[in-house]
Order: sequence, then structure tokens, then C-alpha cells
Amino acid sequence: MKSHLTPLEPKADKATVRRHNLSLVLRAVHDVGETTRAGVATHVGLTRGAVSSLVEQLLEYGFVTEGGKTSSGQAGRPGTVLKVARSGPAGLGVEINIDYIAVCVVDLAGTDRVRVVEHVDNRGVPPSEVLAHAAGLAARAAGSAAEQDLAPAGVHVALPGLVTGGTVRQAPNLGWQRVAVEGLFAQALSALRPDRRALPVSSDNEANTAALAELWYGAGTEGVRSFLYLTGEVGVGGALVLKGELLRGAHGFAGEIGHVVVDPGGPPCRCGARGCLEQYAGQAALLRAAGIGADAGVPGVAELGRRARRGDPAALAAVEEAGRRLGVVVSGAVNLFDPGAVMLGGAYRELMEWLAPAVERELALRVVSGLWTGGGKRLRAASPLGDAARGAAGVIVREVLEDPVAYAERERN
Amino acid sequence: MKSHLTPLEPKADKATVRRHNLSLVLRAVHDVGETTRAGVATHVGLTRGAVSSLVEQLLEYGFVTEGGKTSSGQAGRPGTVLKVARSGPAGLGVEINIDYIAVCVVDLAGTDRVRVVEHVDNRGVPPSEVLAHAAGLAARAAGSAAEQDLAPAGVHVALPGLVTGGTVRQAPNLGWQRVAVEGLFAQALSALRPDRRALPVSSDNEANTAALAELWYGAGTEGVRSFLYLTGEVGVGGALVLKGELLRGAHGFAGEIGHVVVDPGGPPCRCGARGCLEQYAGQAALLRAAGIGADAGVPGVAELGRRARRGDPAALAAVEEAGRRLGVVVSGAVNLFDPGAVMLGGAYRELMEWLAPAVERELALRVVSGLWTGGGKRLRAASPLGDAARGAAGVIVREVLEDPVAYAERERN
Repeated sequence: MKSHLTPLEPKADKATVRRHNLSLVLRAVHDVGETTRAGVATHVGLTRGAVSSLVEQLLEYGFVTEGGKTSSGQAGRPGTVLKVARSGPAGLGVEINIDYIAVCVVDLAGTDRVRVVEHVDNRGVPPSEVLAHAAGLAARAAGSAAEQDLAPAGVHVALPGLVTGGTVRQAPNLGWQRVAVEGLFAQALSALRPDRRALPVSSDNEANTAALAELWYGAGTEGVRSFLYLTGEVGVGGALVLKGELLRGAHGFAGEIGHVVVDPGGPPCRCGARGCLEQYAGQAALLRAAGIGADAGVPGVAELGRRARRGDPAALAAVEEAGRRLGVVVSGAVNLFDPGAVMLGGAYRELMEWLAPAVERELALRVVSGLWTGGGKRLRAASPLGDAARGAAGVIVREVLEDPVAYAERERN
Repeated sequence: MKSHLTPLEPKADKATVRRHNLSLVLRAVHDVGETTRAGVATHVGLTRGAVSSLVEQLLEYGFVTEGGKTSSGQAGRPGTVLKVARSGPAGLGVEINIDYIAVCVVDLAGTDRVRVVEHVDNRGVPPSEVLAHAAGLAARAAGSAAEQDLAPAGVHVALPGLVTGGTVRQAPNLGWQRVAVEGLFAQALSALRPDRRALPVSSDNEANTAALAELWYGAGTEGVRSFLYLTGEVGVGGALVLKGELLRGAHGFAGEIGHVVVDPGGPPCRCGARGCLEQYAGQAALLRAAGIGADAGVPGVAELGRRARRGDPAALAAVEEAGRRLGVVVSGAVNLFDPGAVMLGGAYRELMEWLAPAVERELALRVVSGLWTGGGKRLRAASPLGDAARGAAGVIVREVLEDPVAYAERERN
């Protein structure tokens, strides 16, 4: 028996309860999409009167807007439609990757309102320069957002490496070691917006935020609350979502599937070990095997797709071989975690058509449960390139939904 | 912000609240070990009066006993010591493995009160016969328990395979396919105890219950709420514990680390694939490599330990090689899951001294976070052979703690 009742807690003070209930009502409006006061009352289990008072305050703050009347209200009486606001609070997400930077502004409803992607090789560039470049794109996106009456509540920065406590501990493909990204980014952004209040900056691994984007905004995970997410970039990023929550691990470093071993005596990896998956199924390995330059990046992946489509044997063999290696490692991860689906993102998404059959063959052969023999249904294409930025923006939006009063108070000061 | 407040629920009826609070108080006494009514009141956030009334009922039911006075009570006043009862409700756990069957009775406090282990080769024996044999041992253990005034609330059966919905879907090393273990075991047990009320039977994978035993009763996981558990038996079982809860996966099949691939073209495995970890680091592979018979079982492992201790080169090389393979696979699991510790059980525990250095070398080399270079602290020996049975018994004990009224009502009818 799972307790659905909670122990009686010491009484929380009235202001705390109201603050909590404001979030409860706002999230109900957000989750349902379009609803009425009566609909919210049913959804959250508060009285109609309490909900009305809370909705008034949310309207006043500008988190919620009223639309027309609906006739599908409770007891046949028409109710006023409530929606989350399309202006005001927003999330600003930044993805710094090896060969591009993406920035995204998402409104409260989860709609992608501004998007900037710049292809740029960040390898060998000093971290402070890369972060200043990213801050420039973020400032530009914030400007475009302001023209749409959107005010970001904060910035969340996603990076391809081990990220904890505001620091990139290690990002082998960027060549970064112990870089205080949050501080450096905040500094660069403030310098570009001297007349504005500084935005709070937070950070995470890019595969984590891409997986969150998939969970919150993606169509591919429909009906699936536990999945493994892989992103084929220069590195191979991974993230695990379990019952709708990111599995972070004991120290925040979970999901490093790119460094699972394919062959203990294989080629050296930038992480210091040998034979990691990245060396067989990373973007560089894939492009090299296909006879396209290892550093050809995103345009190289597009070229590989074109060659595969017209039946180029080297291209097909390269993708097949990467798929086989990927399939072996993913089978191991499926045996360990038993996810409901595996989502392939980044370059893998672009090459899905030729990659998936090889991956599925290994899954059918190697997953002990025998649940992965169906082909296609559980192995799915993830969202397009750069959605780690959207997920990062979504993290900020979630923070606003969880505590709208904190945002409103900051905006008023 | 995680919500620590709960939405106001429709009022639960008084009997439901009381039933819930009885469990709350019983669990408080259980978790604290020895406490007083005042101590419980502080622990659970109920009034002293409410706690006293609940404690009276728990005393009457026999879940709790009173000891002497303590002078360390609240406000300096002596209080009567409360403990969970050492008689009455108990858990009965059964582990059916490839070459042994273990049965364990655990009391409410978690103490191991009856233990039976029988070494028997279950390979090739019809499932109904194995289950009847296990039921015989369980009946004998229940008899010994009765002599100690313990009455099992149910039986939990742990098996080395994929177990869901009361059925072993697959247990390759036993050669079982789709065996309705719960039904068969219950039938066999009832036939042996015709004059007794039938005990409810439940089932799970043996690595899962061994990991739960480690979590609930083991000393090795101290301070660690997320760990990977491996058990070296004929098969290599695995389980993942995340924040104090077993990670079961989307279909209940998580933890199958024995079938993570070491070499895609390696020797055939009983699961149907090739080159699984089990073929390199399972008990049979280990014993064969050391020049002891692959089927020598638990006595063979003891012999391997003796040979390693006196420096036999073949024995040391076999353990070293298994450790290296195990280390490669465990490194991958650590990169994926980022646990706080890795616990080695079964045969691995017996061979820890010679196995651990090889495993640790791989962990130090291959775990990207760099957190596994310290040696020894994060890689730990798990509990002795057969503790899957203790964990299984613990599952039943937890059920009693979660809903003591259900047990009391059954006992009265």
C-alpha cells in the first residue's frame, strides 16, 4: 500500500498555502490547456470560491488570460475560458555544443517563440569566448522576445559535458575542464545588458535538457514516461527519464552512454579511456567511416544522408556499422533500465531510416525480456537538432509555474 | 521548488485516517528502534494524545511491546520504552536459485529468526518439483517460526529470472519458460499445511530482493541510497536502487546486467544472444577458467577462494580476467546510472579480495566523472549467500508495517 494520505504536518501559514495554491491553479490551467474556473476546481480539489480568488490574482499578475465563453462547463452553465498568458513570463534556453550554439525563448504555454542557431566550431576556443558568444546570442533573443512582450525569468545553459554546481567539470569534446560557466555567462550577459536587471543563470548537461524537451514538448514519447534518450553529436550524449523525471544519479552524472565500452582495446577516446561508443558511433567516427571528413559537422551529416539515400555503399556501410555498435550498447542499457522507449536525436535522427534497422536487429537479439522484437515501435526518432535549447528554456518555464509569486515579486522590484 | 504541501484532498473517512495513522506510528517505532510515545509524536507530527490512543491499539494487536522506563524522554520526564514485537507478525522469504534453495523468516524488527539453506541442483528438474521442494522447506521454516511464536503474514518467492505477474517469464539458467510460480508454490504449500489458512504468495527476481535486503538490513550501503547490486551466481544478477527504491523499469525487467554484451561475437549465452557478461564473469565461466569444473557450484567457489589464497596462478588469472570483464561492464553501468556505490554479492563477495583490484582498475580508467579512482570505498562487498531470501522475507514485513490492520483482521478471522 502506497500512502496516498500524508501525515498531518504542522500548519503552514496562510501566505505559504496561498502561494502554493496559486501554483497549483496555474499548473492546472497550463496542463489542461483551456479550462474554466469550475474545471480547475475539479482538477485541483479546491472550492469554486477559492479557485476564483486565486484566478483573480493570476489574472492580475498576468500569468493567465481570459478567452470567450464555453458551453461545456459544469452543470451545463457556460464558463469563461482560462488560458496561460502568451506574453509576460518566458524561459530563455541556451545550448552550447561542439559545432553550434542554439538559443530558444519559450512562453508559459510551451510555445517556441524565438529561436537562433549559429553553426560555429567551438573546439579550441577559450571557454570565456564561447560563453561570451553564447551570451551575445541570448541577449539578441531576449531583445526579440521583448518585442513580443515576453520577459525571460532566467537563463538555463546546456552544455555537452559533466555539469554540476554551475561548473562544467569536464567536457572532453570541447576540451573544457572545470569551467565556471554560470558565473562567466552571467557576467558576459550583464555586460551586454547594462541597463537591465541581471537574469538568474543555471546550467545542465545538454542531453538532459534535450530529454526534458522530449518529455515536455515532444510527440515521440507519447504514452511513455520512462525512456532512454540518445543524441548523436560530436559526442554521444545520453539521458534517462524514469516515470516522468530525469534520472540524475548520485552525483548528477548519469546518462554518459557515449563512454560505455564497445571494445576495451579500441581506439583512444578523449575521456582518457579506450574503445568508448563515441569512437564507433559518434558523428566524427560516422563521417570518417563514410569517407566524409570527420570534422564536417552538421553539413557533413546532411551529406551522409544524401549519399545514403542514393545508395552509396560506403555511406550505407558506415551507418550500418555505427548502428550495429549503437545497438549493442543500447541493448545493454535496455537490459539494465527496461525503458518504455529509446529516442534517437541529433545526427541519429537525420539518419534514422538507415540506422534503425541495424539497431533494432541488435535489440531483438540481445534484450532478454524479448519485448524489443517488434521493430520500430519502441525505437523512435527524437526532436530536431537544437532542442536541448528548448528543453533548457522549459526548465525556466517550469520554475515560474512552480512558484509564480517569486517571479511576480522579482518583476515588481 | 518541490511541493511539500499537498493539495487538499476530499476528506478521507475516519477509519481510513486511523488505519493510516496506525501504520505511521508502527513504522516510527520500527524505524527509530526504541522510542517513547512522546518520541513518536515528535517523529510523525501527531499530538501526544492521538499517539497514545494509536499505541494502545498496536499493543492490543501485538505489533508493539513496552519495555522499561527511559529517562531521556521529552522535557526530562521518564517515558515507557516502545519496541516492535519480537513475536507475532513475520515475513517468510524463499529464494530458489540454480544450485540452492534458501528460506528465511524475519520478524518485525528485521531480525533473521529461522534460516534454511539446501544445496541442490535445480537444473533440468521440472519446475513443479523444484517449487514443491521449496514449499517443503518453507513449511518446515514456518513450523520452526511457530515454535518461536511467529506467524508469517505471507510468502515472497525470489527466483533467478524475469518475474512479473506471478509468472517466471524466463529463467535461462533454470531452463524455465512461462512458469506460474505463485500458483504452483501456493498449491504445494497448502497441500503441506492442510489444517492452516493459506498464506498469500508473491514473487520477484532474486537480485531485486537481495538488493532490498542490502538496503534494509545490510551494513554495506550505509550512507548510500542509490547503488548498483550485482550477484555472481550461475547467472549474473543485477538490481538498481535509486534513492532508496528499487528501479523496476517500464515492465519490471530492469537490472539484467548479466546480459550486457562483452563481445558481440563471443560464446553463445543461454539467453539466445552471444558474448553476454555471464559467459565471462558468471560462476561457471569463472570455475571453468580456473580449472575447476564449471558445475562445481558453491563448493567450487570456496575451492577457488582457497586456491587464490595460496597463490595458484590459474586461479588468480581466472579471477583477474573475470574482474576485468566485470569492471568494463560495471564501468558502463556506472557511466549510465551514476550510483553512490556498487555492491558485489554471491560468489563475487567470496572472491572480493582478488576480484576487486581488477574491477577497480577498470572503474578508475573508464568512469567519466573521475569519481571512481579512490579505490575500495565505492566498490563494496554485499551480504552473504542467500540474502535474497532475507530480502524476500523483508518484503512481507514491509507489507505488514504499511497496513498492520489488514494483518490483524486476517489473523482474527
